[in-house]
Formats: sequence, structure tokens, C-alpha cells
Amino acid sequence: MGGVTDERRARMRLSQLVEPGDERLGAALAASSACAVLARIEGNDRTLPGVEHYRARLGLAPIGLDEAWAVGGVRYLMPGDGEWPTQLDHLGNAAPWGLFVTGAELRVAAARSVAIVGARAATQYGLHVASDLATDLATRGWAVVSGGAYGIDAAAHRGALAGGGNTIAALAFGIDVAYPRGNASLFARIRAEGGTLVSEFAPGSTPTKPRFLMRNRIIAALTRGTLVVEAAYRSGALNTAAVARRLGRPVLVVPGPVTSAQSVGCHRLARGDEPARLVTDASEVIEDVGLIGELADRPDPLRRVRDSLDPVSLRILEAMPAESVATVADLSVAAGVEVGSTGGVLLRLVAAGLVREAPAGFVRVPGAADAVVRPQR
Amino acid sequence: MGGVTDERRARMRLSQLVEPGDERLGAALAASSACAVLARIEGNDRTLPGVEHYRARLGLAPIGLDEAWAVGGVRYLMPGDGEWPTQLDHLGNAAPWGLFVTGAELRVAAARSVAIVGARAATQYGLHVASDLATDLATRGWAVVSGGAYGIDAAAHRGALAGGGNTIAALAFGIDVAYPRGNASLFARIRAEGGTLVSEFAPGSTPTKPRFLMRNRIIAALTRGTLVVEAAYRSGALNTAAVARRLGRPVLVVPGPVTSAQSVGCHRLARGDEPARLVTDASEVIEDVGLIGELADRPDPLRRVRDSLDPVSLRILEAMPAESVATVADLSVAAGVEVGSTGGVLLRLVAAGLVREAPAGFVRVPGAADAVVRPQR
Repeated sequence: MGGVTDERRARMRLSQLVEPGDERLGAALAASSACAVLARIEGNDRTLPGVEHYRARLGLAPIGLDEAWAVGGVRYLMPGDGEWPTQLDHLGNAAPWGLFVTGAELRVAAARSVAIVGARAATQYGLHVASDLATDLATRGWAVVSGGAYGIDAAAHRGALAGGGNTIAALAFGIDVAYPRGNASLFARIRAEGGTLVSEFAPGSTPTKPRFLMRNRIIAALTRGTLVVEAAYRSGALNTAAVARRLGRPVLVVPGPVTSAQSVGCHRLARGDEPARLVTDASEVIEDVGLIGELADRPDPLRRVRDSLDPVSLRILEAMPAESVATVADLSVAAGVEVGSTGGVLLRLVAAGLVREAPAGFVRVPGAADAVVRPQR
Repeated sequence: MGGVTDERRARMRLSQLVEPGDERLGAALAASSACAVLARIEGNDRTLPGVEHYRARLGLAPIGLDEAWAVGGVRYLMPGDGEWPTQLDHLGNAAPWGLFVTGAELRVAAARSVAIVGARAATQYGLHVASDLATDLATRGWAVVSGGAYGIDAAAHRGALAGGGNTIAALAFGIDVAYPRGNASLFARIRAEGGTLVSEFAPGSTPTKPRFLMRNRIIAALTRGTLVVEAAYRSGALNTAAVARRLGRPVLVVPGPVTSAQSVGCHRLARGDEPARLVTDASEVIEDVGLIGELADRPDPLRRVRDSLDPVSLRILEAMPAESVATVADLSVAAGVEVGSTGGVLLRLVAAGLVREAPAGFVRVPGAADAVVRPQR
């Protein structure tokens, strides 16, 4: 991080006093320094909107950079720092005024990143798909951003690590807090394996529902697009998607069975006024969120011998009985093609290996028309 | 059917000689009567494009209205008949020049109809969804059109009959032919329960792959929209969808697991240049294919008490520990709301039944904030 200035200390203090995402504070910080704003709060300047609320926590001891949480390599970033991910500033007055970060360099990691979010109470299907997608994105050099929760979030983080890629967990609580407890080892693993943890909440802050919602805007704003893997009718993931949409970032969904309550939210997004794009694999995710020209490599569809036949040849071939011999006259009538043309077409089909001559006529070569043609490159 | 005229007989004869969908013949029929076109074929008029092929089947005995198939109530419709579904004429020169029909009045049945098509090798999921959707559409007065094949087609027909509704099977073979054999009882049931069978192929015609493709255009053109329930990467159902799109009719798909090969075709359609609409129930199908104003009745999403709280009240409520008592001062700090406001908000939360006063402070009323608010109409 840059030098430890009064400005940095003031922003850390504001992270204690004010809930993130407060647009009144954002407006004040756009107009003056954090030191000046902090002085107005301490001086109970009634011309600062919200000051009466901000003062509620003045009794808390200010946090310093010598605390236990900072020893583990936690740094406090603010706008203007080289590591600051400037895409967060698209949030306007709701942009974070600072971030506690630990692990890999945030700006680089987030530059080519996708959010993968979804239900805590995910199904085996959702967990499997989230993990696979994250692994495939990681192997292609994309970082996966999520919220560190149970279910889809954890599967996405783990999948990215399994793919040897970067992953960023944006937390709804202090960076020194492990919530849920059961994910403490996941957070430790993310730090150990070159991932990044990020939080705008003061160390020690506990999670609350409004904080999860506020945190969601960080996930949406850090990334090139937000992918919802599973979401119930009401789901925090839909909130993340809504922020992404407001920011003009692509919103993607994984489809699922219409009989699954955990896919209802995804399907709702896909039917919205601005329909979310449906994706089924990492190639499609990259196609939808990548830079122009960064198109997915995708195998050509299988092409079969029958696909290259002209309509008349196909009609004659299809008119042939599966296993018995047919005469030219039979086939002319069955296909509705004159006898002269029928004979010529049959000879071409013989040459192509699709039909065999038999003593009393012609028979099909079983399976020949369905053989796959190797694409020529 | 209307009167048995020479024109009707000529069209029936053409159904023997020419494969349906032949645009050269369609152009000739647009310019003159079927009797005149038939005379040109019989006279080997080389100025008629395709005549050399049409003559291949002249040796077949002409079919008449006194044949066995006609005894069972089969009639031959042609454009201009009151029962002719004029939406088929949107196919232009590829429109059918006549239809063998048995069962309920075709025009009325098709007027408010949806195509439900998909894989023969459907999964249990696909069969279940196709059947349920067809039943629900039938109970709302929509006819279900499909192709009479195994898998999704059969499930759709059966579902519509189960819903007491109409169903139309458009066949790729003669109306007196049962293919596949295993669906003979389905065809009999459709006739017995007031459904309709329709075919443009001469009685006795056997199915071939090109005939299935030609038949698909009838399914697409008869209906207000085409719904694909399950389809592999290569599937005839995608061809039906392509015709529907060319005709400007909505194309809808049922999503499925991305791990299912039988949903790949549906997902491809949803990611196309003109993305298919994703549907998850009959209400959404009607919403997408219905006339303007024919909107689905849909329950409002559940609204909970917490949804009507202002942000500050919600913050204070969320800051309350789940089971222990908190003081006003605790909550002021935890929520970041000044003490005076915190007390006032708490009293309003008590009045709303969301919080209870306790000897040493306040406690949450478990579950109260998540209670569902009955919508007022």
C-alpha cells in the first residue's frame, strides 16, 4: 500500500463510523478530503447530512495499522493507490472509499475477472456446474470473484483454485472475521494459494443482511460480468445481478431444470425486460464478458456424410429400404425422381460408398451416411 | 369437406406424384389450377420445371374418395375450404396444396395452438415437463400441435388429452399409416378423444427423413409459436424452430441441466442471434405466444414484512442478536444510528410486532420480519 497518511487513517476511521455504500458520505468525500469529513463528524457539523448517525460509533477506539489483523499482510487501499481497482469508481457516490485487502495484488487479479454467485442452499447440480465453470475459467486465465459463502460461492472459489487460477472473495464483514465458521479453512486456503480477500468493513465487523447486500455491489463492480449459477425466487444473487446490470456489465445465468426451486431465480433473470444471457460452459462465459475479439474456441458441430448430399440424392437414399434390395424403378417411384436421374444418382451413391450394387438392384451400406466427416482446416 | 370437384381430385393426385414442399409446384399452382398443372405433367410439358421427376409416379393408380382410409372419416381439404387453416398459406410456394384430415375441425382447433416438439430420446425430465405443460395449456383452452413421434411429441399429445383439450398430430406419412407402430394406440386415442390427425402425404405413404423435415413446416405454420422441450445438438425440433422463426412466430425453449445432452439444442436456441425465449410454465408460454392482452395470471411474488421497512429500521433490526437482549446503546453502535433515532425506531418496531421490550433492553420476535404480507387488491 502507499504511505500511511492522515488521509488513509481518516478513511479507515470512516469505515468504522459509517456503513459502506452511504451515498451522502460518498458525496462529501467527492467534495473534500476524508480528513475534513472526519473533522466535521467529530465537530458535529450539522450541515453534513447523516452526521447524527455517524457519531453513534465515535466511542469506538480508532483502528490502527499495528493491530493483529494487519500483521498477517492486510493492507488498506484507497482510490489513487496503484493497486486500487478503478472499475469500482463506476459506483459513483456509492463507491467504496477504501478496502482492506490481503493476498494477491487486487487490481491485476480483478482486471480479467468474472463474478460467479448463487444460492447458499445449492443443489449438487449447481455445485458441480459452479466448480467446473470456475476451473475452466481459471485455466483460461480468468479470475473468479465471489462472496465466500456456502454453496455456489464456495464451489466457485474452490473450482478456481483447482484450476490453478486466481480467486477473490469479497467479504460482508471484517477481513479478520471468518464467516461462516465452516468456511474458515476456505479463506485460509485462498490466502495460501495466491487468492485475494477484500472487505470494506472495519476489522472485527460482523455480518448483517444489509452488509451482504452492500457487499454485493463490490462483487458486481469488480468484475467484467456476473454469472448466477443457481438462485431461488428471492436470492441475494439477484441483487448482485441487478447491480451488474445498472453498471452496464453483462448478466449471465446457468439454466437448470424448471422443476428446481434453486433455478427459478436464474430463469427469472433470463425472462426479464433485459434478459440475462444463458451460458452453459466457460467458452460461452468468455464469449459474453470477454473483450471484443476474445472469442471462445469452440469445436465445430459434427458434420455427417448425409449433410453434403444434394436434396435429390438424399431423397433417393432415404427411400431405400433398410435391409432389402430395391430396383431403380422401385426407387424412382418411392423417391418421386424420374428413372433416368435415379440410376445416375444411385451410381454416384455407390461411388461415395453409401450404397452397394446387389444382384437384383441396390442396397444401403448401413451407417455410411451417418459417418462423421472430419473438418478440414 | 366441400364438394368433390375435379380440382380436389387433381390435388389429391398431385399429393401422390410430388413431394410436399416443392416450391416449383407451388409456383405453378399459384399461377393456374391443379387440373391444369396435372394436365401439363401428364402431357410431359417440359416448360413445367420438375416435370421429369413428377412423372416418375404416374404409374401409380390414382387414389379415390371411396378408399378404405376415407371410410374412417378422412377428408381432403384444400385452400378455400372453410376448414382450411389459412395460416399455412404464410409458407408461400412451400405451402401445402391440400391436407388429409381426420378428427375435430382443423381450423378451429389450430386457431389457438402451440407446437410442443422435441427429442424422441427424451429424458424423464423432458417427458414430465412436456406432459405437464401440455396439460396446463389444454386446461386454459390451447390446442397442442406435435408430430406424433415417441418421446416429447407423444408426451405432449397425451398431456393435452389428459387436460381435456385438443391436440393435433401432423404426420410425416399417410394418414392411414401408424408410425411408429408403438404409437398406433396414441393415434387411435387422439381420434377417439376429439383430437385431429393431419397429413399432406398421400394415404399409404411411408415416412422418410426428408418427409419428417417437410412435415415440420406444417407444425410451425399451424401454430402461434413453437416450444422446444428437449433437443440434442442435432435434432429435428431445431428445424421446426427455424421454420417458426422464418415465419415470424415466437420460438420458446424449456431450459434444462447444462449437463444434459438432451437440453443442448434448447440452450443453443436460447443463445442464438435471435435468442429463443425461455419458458418454465404454461403461463409463460401463453404470455409469449398469446394475443396482446392475453397475459398470464400469475401470483404476485411473496412480500414479507421486512420488505416494507425503511433502511434505518432494517439496519437496527438486523443488528439485533438472534436470541439475546440488546440495549439501545448497543444497537446504536452496531447499526451506526444515533442513540436518539435508535430508541424511536425500536419503539416503532415494537408497535409493529417485530421487536419485544425486555427487562434490560429489546429482543427480536423470531420470524416476525419474515412473515408474508397478504397482498391487498
